Amino acid sequence: MDRHILGIDVGGTNVKLGIVAPGGKIVARANIATKNYSRSKLQLIKAMVRTADELIASEGLAKQDFCGVGIGLPGLIDPVGGIVRYLPNIPGWRNVRLQEIMENDLGLPVFIENDVNMITLAEWKFGAGVGYQNFICITLGTGVGGGLILNNAMYRGEGFVAGEVGHMPLGESTLEGHVGNGVLAERAGKIFKIRNMQPPDVFRLAQEGNARAIEFWEEVGTYLGTTLAGVINLLNLRLVIVGGGVSNNYRFFAPAMKATLKAKAMRVQAGMVKVTRCKLHNDAGIIGARILVEEFLIGKG
Amino acid sequence: MDRHILGIDVGGTNVKLGIVAPGGKIVARANIATKNYSRSKLQLIKAMVRTADELIASEGLAKQDFCGVGIGLPGLIDPVGGIVRYLPNIPGWRNVRLQEIMENDLGLPVFIENDVNMITLAEWKFGAGVGYQNFICITLGTGVGGGLILNNAMYRGEGFVAGEVGHMPLGESTLEGHVGNGVLAERAGKIFKIRNMQPPDVFRLAQEGNARAIEFWEEVGTYLGTTLAGVINLLNLRLVIVGGGVSNNYRFFAPAMKATLKAKAMRVQAGMVKVTRCKLHNDAGIIGARILVEEFLIGKG
Repeated sequence: MDRHILGIDVGGTNVKLGIVAPGGKIVARANIATKNYSRSKLQLIKAMVRTADELIASEGLAKQDFCGVGIGLPGLIDPVGGIVRYLPNIPGWRNVRLQEIMENDLGLPVFIENDVNMITLAEWKFGAGVGYQNFICITLGTGVGGGLILNNAMYRGEGFVAGEVGHMPLGESTLEGHVGNGVLAERAGKIFKIRNMQPPDVFRLAQEGNARAIEFWEEVGTYLGTTLAGVINLLNLRLVIVGGGVSNNYRFFAPAMKATLKAKAMRVQAGMVKVTRCKLHNDAGIIGARILVEEFLIGKG
Repeated sequence: MDRHILGIDVGGTNVKLGIVAPGGKIVARANIATKNYSRSKLQLIKAMVRTADELIASEGLAKQDFCGVGIGLPGLIDPVGGIVRYLPNIPGWRNVRLQEIMENDLGLPVFIENDVNMITLAEWKFGAGVGYQNFICITLGTGVGGGLILNNAMYRGEGFVAGEVGHMPLGESTLEGHVGNGVLAERAGKIFKIRNMQPPDVFRLAQEGNARAIEFWEEVGTYLGTTLAGVINLLNLRLVIVGGGVSNNYRFFAPAMKATLKAKAMRVQAGMVKVTRCKLHNDAGIIGARILVEEFLIGKG
């Protein structure tokens, strides 16, 4: 594994490509606007192949300088079968044999994975999770997702959809129903009576010392801490990593989150868990591709 | 692993011993009343050793007919270090190096484990979990516990205390706070205005068609289904096994439990999970010892 890998992070807005060196550093990058190809999945795949080839060539590299390609996608992915089952935010993607198509076009081993799992893999080997064997990486954004490293391996579940911490019941709703980005925006609008109020606006108010804004984030922390207490009692994890766009407000929700977790988790479990913010941010999706390729190439001998 | 193992199931009332043949059958049994030795842990250990030796001799067997001994205990166990950390219901047991003591006295390899994990191991290899790679086995009794098989291995967590499904938050309380045996008895007493009303009494009323008793168990099912939906969304399990004394009421709470689980779990997760009752009941603690011994002997080469 002393060669480069190519990481591709498919999002609803952009497809980000990066060449990842053995140490986890991104040495070159490229971008595609997803919406230019939203009508046809084959056009998007062709654009990814063309951009990958151009990126490799522009760095003066050749295919033999790479051991493989890792692609993260926002949806239901079967990484063993190499099939994209469903992408909720990119139309037309259902049961696409992406691994096979990309391998034929690129002439390199290709592996695919859910984007949240990709971030989890990146944090595990190059971020906040280095050295940990049992942790969850939760992503706070429009949706609330999670990836699990258990017994020192990625835990994907029976059908590759484990980690849906946002859909754990909480009160009459779910965690995501309380702290998803859209829900936070709606609640902020009601509290502050400002049209199109967004979570970053509440962050700024909290920075200015606005008591209601500070309380807003404390409530978010309490919701997160309650759900995490259940996760920690069930899984006895050593670490919780918090990432995603809404984690920009970490300093305002973390104290209540940690206090609630400690109060509601069992003594032994609470005593051994650490909560921290993610380290890799926007690059995690590309960097994680390196771990995915290594996992499958080593796993496949 | 073609030899016998000796299984010991330590409970607050009885210590049950059994010789378990390679196929999982218990070929001989013995019992000790735990309370006769509640004053001294060393006296209880001596009684276990003596009873084990007598049981082996009474069957005309010798130590070389055994590959090892597995002991399940109700509390916080470190199976890797071989240490009983704490038994909440048997006084005086704190940080006892039980593996070392028993190995010296018995002259056989000894392995120890939490009793709920022992039941989970038994159901995995000889009960309702045969052939499954990802499941939870929950035990409904005075407490509500759980054991996890993930990625085709027992998942113990960072400090060997994973599986505490009873302590997952549910409403203002926890699952155990809603369906623990004592809570059920208290609720039954209030509803039916009968002193010392116990869950089996509500079972009999439900059998007779009492509408309030049927509703009582439906409520239990709804609590269980809500918590299980969170577990299933997080872990994408293929199977839930329900055991423990309160599971005798399975036929009355299972329909509501399954309906709630299906309604609150995500579509993919809900579609692939099966819920069933345990198969091994009171023998599971002894039978599981066989899997534990095999796991550690094979794991240790």
